Amino acid sequence: MNIALRIAYDGTGFHGWQRQAITPTVQQTLEQTLAGICGAEPYVSGCGRTDAGVHAKIYVCNFKADCPVPLERLPRVLNGLLPDGISVEKAVSVPEDFDARFSCKSKEYTYVFSWAPTPDPFRAKREFRIYARPDVELMDRCGAMIAGTRDFACFQNTGTEIKDTVRTVFYCRAEEIGRRTIVRVRADGFLYNMVRNIAGTLLYVGIGKIGADELEDMMTRSDRTLMGPTLPPQGLYMTGLDYDMEALDGQKNALEI
Amino acid sequence: MNIALRIAYDGTGFHGWQRQAITPTVQQTLEQTLAGICGAEPYVSGCGRTDAGVHAKIYVCNFKADCPVPLERLPRVLNGLLPDGISVEKAVSVPEDFDARFSCKSKEYTYVFSWAPTPDPFRAKREFRIYARPDVELMDRCGAMIAGTRDFACFQNTGTEIKDTVRTVFYCRAEEIGRRTIVRVRADGFLYNMVRNIAGTLLYVGIGKIGADELEDMMTRSDRTLMGPTLPPQGLYMTGLDYDMEALDGQKNALEI
Repeated sequence: MNIALRIAYDGTGFHGWQRQAITPTVQQTLEQTLAGICGAEPYVSGCGRTDAGVHAKIYVCNFKADCPVPLERLPRVLNGLLPDGISVEKAVSVPEDFDARFSCKSKEYTYVFSWAPTPDPFRAKREFRIYARPDVELMDRCGAMIAGTRDFACFQNTGTEIKDTVRTVFYCRAEEIGRRTIVRVRADGFLYNMVRNIAGTLLYVGIGKIGADELEDMMTRSDRTLMGPTLPPQGLYMTGLDYDMEALDGQKNALEI
Repeated sequence: MNIALRIAYDGTGFHGWQRQAITPTVQQTLEQTLAGICGAEPYVSGCGRTDAGVHAKIYVCNFKADCPVPLERLPRVLNGLLPDGISVEKAVSVPEDFDARFSCKSKEYTYVFSWAPTPDPFRAKREFRIYARPDVELMDRCGAMIAGTRDFACFQNTGTEIKDTVRTVFYCRAEEIGRRTIVRVRADGFLYNMVRNIAGTLLYVGIGKIGADELEDMMTRSDRTLMGPTLPPQGLYMTGLDYDMEALDGQKNALEI
């Protein structure tokens, strides 16, 4: 049976999604917990390889196993067994050929900046603090320039073997919510560190370190070193998923509790 | 110079406010950090002795020292030195006889219950999960019965030498916000574990384990064992302070980010 889980996790305590040799990850924690229920440890396929410290307000993964627990009760059983930072919202039966990564039509990530003068002690590992209020209108206008189907090599970090760097970004928007600025990016797929690099570039635009009129030209040169910095992981959340399946699709607000 | 700080802290990483022999506390962390700025380690007096795991959205403390940093810049300097879970919002000069504990006119605590079917992985250490939706109207009605000037011995845990157990509770209210129920209590002073005991008693009322009509009679018997349980610390926040001083007073929402 192919089972998909819709989950959420606080990335603080995990070394990212993907199983590692010795550090705890979300994938490994789920696989080990499912082993206790299903008898054998399944391979759990995830919708994206979030880095250490990156959060997921929504995340879908799937595994093939004979599960003795009825699916409607599986979330509660898993939530009783999993550590605090991961929770399972629902478990659904999916077609045999469903794969959380390859069946995914689009994903949305949100990057959260805080420019409040006082740090929020409850969100130290959940936002990136900056010391000036960026120009959100300029960021949003440049975000619109980033959207489209194009070669995003300029926003890809090294350390990956991906050759095809063309992706479709459906939207890239910046908005201000209280004393925070957020950047939301939805695409059919993401290159390594792409959102953290886009957010870093838009931040540089918003604080005047990159001119809005230079951006279009810079992007065509496919040179990562021309763009803004790779921002730290704690400001990044997976916030939206589209599989064209009502049971799995969803959209969450990174700032809503 | 007598200096008051308005701060906030995530209680998760601390063994409460008060200095302990070996475990890290908020008081000790502040005193050690101030020692680096002021030369000698001051004694920092706090507005209340929050237990391990209890949070403060707002908290006032004071210390006497010669501070070489101008007070308007002290919060930023301290925030650069303090660990993630504590932040300083403001530093103000106060009269010599001001004491954060004894000068305080009233404090508000908020207890947060979550009855959402899925745990919020971002708030595991910041709310108390319950498995049924309590009757908030009944809780609120009984909260109104608790308010007043009276002997609160029935809500005091052992392990304290306090003899005078009469306090004035200005209000005790229950309300529902989304899939959470909160209990807010403001009083001129609190006995040991008083809010966690009041919240436990109101929860028992809200789930039918204590009859609303029994409560008044139970309270007059001053018997702690008749009341509801002492709830765990992670659901409790200090949320309001009144010193009759504009610079220090404030009211925060436990659920707002």
